Amino acid sequence: MKKIVIQGMGFVGLAMATVVANTTDEDGKILFEVVGVDLPSNQKRIDLINEGRLPFKSEDKSFPEKLNKAVNEFENLKATSDENAYKKADVVVVDVQLDIKKNEFGNSQNNTLKKESFETAIKTLGENIAPNCLVLVETTVVPGFTKRLVKNILEDKFIDRGIDVNENPPKIAHSYERVMPGKNYLNSIKNFFRTYSGINKKSAKLAKNFLSKVVNTKEFPLRKENSTEASELAKVLENSYRTVNIALIYEWTLLAEKMEVNLFSVLEGIRKRPTHGNIMNPGFGVGGYCLTKDALLAHWAAENYYDSDFGLPLSTIAIDINDKMPLHTYDLIKENNIGSQKVAILGVSYRENIGDTRNSPTEILYNKLENNNFKIVLHDPYVDKWPEKDNAEFIDKISEIKDYNCIVLATRHQNYLNMTKEEWIDVLKYNSLVVDANNILSDEKIKYLLENNINVVGVGKGHISKMKRRINNG
Amino acid sequence: MKKIVIQGMGFVGLAMATVVANTTDEDGKILFEVVGVDLPSNQKRIDLINEGRLPFKSEDKSFPEKLNKAVNEFENLKATSDENAYKKADVVVVDVQLDIKKNEFGNSQNNTLKKESFETAIKTLGENIAPNCLVLVETTVVPGFTKRLVKNILEDKFIDRGIDVNENPPKIAHSYERVMPGKNYLNSIKNFFRTYSGINKKSAKLAKNFLSKVVNTKEFPLRKENSTEASELAKVLENSYRTVNIALIYEWTLLAEKMEVNLFSVLEGIRKRPTHGNIMNPGFGVGGYCLTKDALLAHWAAENYYDSDFGLPLSTIAIDINDKMPLHTYDLIKENNIGSQKVAILGVSYRENIGDTRNSPTEILYNKLENNNFKIVLHDPYVDKWPEKDNAEFIDKISEIKDYNCIVLATRHQNYLNMTKEEWIDVLKYNSLVVDANNILSDEKIKYLLENNINVVGVGKGHISKMKRRINNG
Repeated sequence: MKKIVIQGMGFVGLAMATVVANTTDEDGKILFEVVGVDLPSNQKRIDLINEGRLPFKSEDKSFPEKLNKAVNEFENLKATSDENAYKKADVVVVDVQLDIKKNEFGNSQNNTLKKESFETAIKTLGENIAPNCLVLVETTVVPGFTKRLVKNILEDKFIDRGIDVNENPPKIAHSYERVMPGKNYLNSIKNFFRTYSGINKKSAKLAKNFLSKVVNTKEFPLRKENSTEASELAKVLENSYRTVNIALIYEWTLLAEKMEVNLFSVLEGIRKRPTHGNIMNPGFGVGGYCLTKDALLAHWAAENYYDSDFGLPLSTIAIDINDKMPLHTYDLIKENNIGSQKVAILGVSYRENIGDTRNSPTEILYNKLENNNFKIVLHDPYVDKWPEKDNAEFIDKISEIKDYNCIVLATRHQNYLNMTKEEWIDVLKYNSLVVDANNILSDEKIKYLLENNINVVGVGKGHISKMKRRINNG
Repeated sequence: MKKIVIQGMGFVGLAMATVVANTTDEDGKILFEVVGVDLPSNQKRIDLINEGRLPFKSEDKSFPEKLNKAVNEFENLKATSDENAYKKADVVVVDVQLDIKKNEFGNSQNNTLKKESFETAIKTLGENIAPNCLVLVETTVVPGFTKRLVKNILEDKFIDRGIDVNENPPKIAHSYERVMPGKNYLNSIKNFFRTYSGINKKSAKLAKNFLSKVVNTKEFPLRKENSTEASELAKVLENSYRTVNIALIYEWTLLAEKMEVNLFSVLEGIRKRPTHGNIMNPGFGVGGYCLTKDALLAHWAAENYYDSDFGLPLSTIAIDINDKMPLHTYDLIKENNIGSQKVAILGVSYRENIGDTRNSPTEILYNKLENNNFKIVLHDPYVDKWPEKDNAEFIDKISEIKDYNCIVLATRHQNYLNMTKEEWIDVLKYNSLVVDANNILSDEKIKYLLENNINVVGVGKGHISKMKRRINNG
C-alpha cells in the first residue's frame, strides 16, 4: 500500500485524509495508508481523530462515518504530530494554511503575508521526505510559490542532506481542491473537477497517478495545466471572480434600497440571459478563508514576483467593499431607531448549514455593535462556541430572543428558512425590528410581520418600504 | 390597425420598427401601421428607409428583406422627420439616445450627462401625442428618469395644452430591449425575454398589450417589474455585470502574461464549475454604446436622485479599466520593438461580424499610435468609412498589409478566424510582429508563424514566450 501523508488536519486536510483512506480499487481493496500530521499544539484534535471522531460538526453524515471506518475498521488512517511520519511517505499532500493579514480595515492592499509557518512546514518536509516522494501542494498559495519557494526550500534541504538534486530533484506538483463544506463535503473532493500541474514531467505524472485514484475521473476528468503558475493562478482567480461579483451586487444593493427596488426580483430577470446566469444575490457579507483574501495573494505576487505596475485594483477593492458590507446592517439598525441597545443575531458561521466561523461577517457586525455599547446575544444551531469571540453570549433556543428589540437574520441556515410566519411572530415581540440581512424571509412572511406591526427591513429589499406604506394606508 | 410611432431610427429604433411592421396575428394579418421619426438632419437615412433600404450593413439577412417588405409590399412602414406623425399614435416607442460624456480619459466619474436632446424628444411628444397614447421608453435611461423626467415633461406639456392630467394622466411605460446586432439582429427583439413596467396600472397594461403582440411570449414570457425604477435599474445593472467581469479578466490578463500563463486555458478550467460559467475571456477592449457608459447613468442617479454616499465605485472603476485596455496592445507593440513606425490594424468595429464603430477600442489604440507618429492603415470587412475618424486610411484587401511591420488583430471577425496558417504566412512579411489582441490565432497557427520566424505576442497569451523559447532551442 502506498503511504500518503497529509500535512495539516484542518477543514481541507482532514476531509482529504478521510477520502484518501476510503479509496479502494475496483475490487474494493483499500489502496492507501494515510497519516495526518498536525502541530503538537493541536494534540486534542489529533487525539479525537485517532479515536475516529470528527473534531468539528458537519452536515455531511458520511464524514464522521468514513472517518470512523478508516480509523477503527480499515485501520489505515491515523494522526500524529511526529515529523518522522514524512520519512516513509510516497506522497505528501500539503494542506497547511497560508495567511495574509490585513493591517487596515477597508484597505486590504495594506497587508502582511504570513508565510513563515508555511515555510516551516515545507522545511520540515525537506528535512524528512525521501527524494522520490511527491510533494503535492493543495494549499492556496501565492501564485509562483511552488517554484519560487517550495522548490527552493526542498532543494536546499536536500543539498544539506547530501542528496544530489541534479540526479534526484524534488518532485513537486500543485493541485487545488474545491472543497465545499456542507452536505456535500467529502463528495466535493471525490466527485468534482480537479486541475493539476507539476514543476516537471515526472512530478506531473506522479500527481496524475495519485489523483486519478482518489478522484472520480470517469465523470470528472483531471485537467492538466502546463505550469504550476497556471494552476496556482486558476485557484485564486476562481475565488476572485466570486469576490468581485459579490461586491458588484453589494454596491447595487445600496442603490436599489434607496430606489425602493426589490433587487432580488431584478436579478431573477437578469438571470434569464444565459450569459448572466452567474449574477449574485444581495447578502449580509462575505466570510470564510478564501474569498476574503485570495486576490491579495495574487496581488502580492504581482508586486513582489512579477514586477507589475497595474496590480489587481478591481479584485482588491472588491475585498474592501465586501469587508464593509456587514456594516450596512448596522446602518439599517441605526436608521430604524429601535430605541434600545439590545440586538440578537441569528447566524454566526459564515456560510449556511455549517459551523465554520472563520472571518464570519457576523464578527464585523458584532464588533461594530459592541463598540457602540449594544448588548448582543447570538444564536446559531451549528456553533456552540465562537473561537474568535470567547466572551460572546449564546442562546440555545430561538424563543429566548423575545427580549431583544432588534433581530438580525444573518446566516441562511435551513432552520431559519424553515420557520413559518406564525413561528416568527411567536418569537418576536410587537414593535421589534427585524433586519433580514440575507434573504431569509419571503415576501409573504414579511407582509405578515408588517401586518402584525413588526417593523421589517432587508438588505436588497427596498420594496419593503412600499409594502409598509401600502399596509399603513389600509 | 394600431398606429405605432418609433422615435429615433438608429440601430435599435429601425430594428424595432421593422419587427413591429412585420408583426401579424395568427391568421397572418398585419397588425400595425408604423412610422419611424428621426431628426431633419438625418434626412438621408429617412430617404433610404422610405426606399426600403437599410442605411447600414447587417449580417442578419432577414433585416433588409423585412424592411423592404414592410415599406414596399405591406406599405405599413415609413420614415419621416415630421412631428405631426406623433399626433395619431396609439403607442410611441422612444429609441433616441441618451449620452453621457466622459470629460477625462480613465476617470469616468468626471462626466457630463447630455440629457438635452432626450428632453427635447420627450417635449416633442408632450406637444403632440393624444392623451391616451402610450409612451414606451426603450432608451437606456438614468434610473429614475421615467418618473422624474419623462412624466414631469409630459404632464407640463399636457397642462400647457389644457389637458386635465388628473383625468388624463400621461401613460408611460419602460421596457428595455436586448438587441444584439449580428446574425440574430431582428430575432433578438422578437425571440427573447423582455422586462416591462408602467408608472401606473393602466400604463403597465397598455405596455403588456403592445409587447405581447410583438414579442414571442409563448417561448419568452414577459416579465413585469413593479416599478419603472426596477426595470430601469435592471438594464444598467445587466450591462454593468458585463463591464465589471470584462475588467476583472483584464487585470488578471496583465498578471498572467507576466507569469507566462495561458489565461485562456486557465479560464476554460474555471468554467467547469457551473457557478463560474460566465467568466469572460481576455480581449482587446470594450466598445459599443452600452457597456462603456451604462454604469455611469446609474452612478449619476445615485448621486443626483438618491442621495447615495457610496455610489458605484466598482462599476465605474471597471469602466476606467476597460477604457485603458486597448493601450495594453500599444505596450505590446512598443515592448517588442518592431524597429519601424508602420502598423496595420485588422478590425475597426467594436464587435465581431458587424460594422458598428461606436466607441470602438480600435479608436483608443489608433489615437495612441497616431500621437506617437505611427503610420496606420486599417482593414475591416464591415467598415468602409469610419465616422469617428474621417481621414483614417483603409485598405480593401488583407494582402495589402504586407508592407506593414506590425499587424494588430483587433476584432474577432469570422473572416480573420477562417484564415489558414498558410494564408497568414502569405500576407505577413518575415520578421514582422503580429499582436493577436483578441484570441484570433489558435495555438497551432501561432506555432506555425513562430517556426517561420514571425514574432507573435498575444493578449492573455503569456505562454507564447515559452513557445518561442522552445522553438528557438530547437
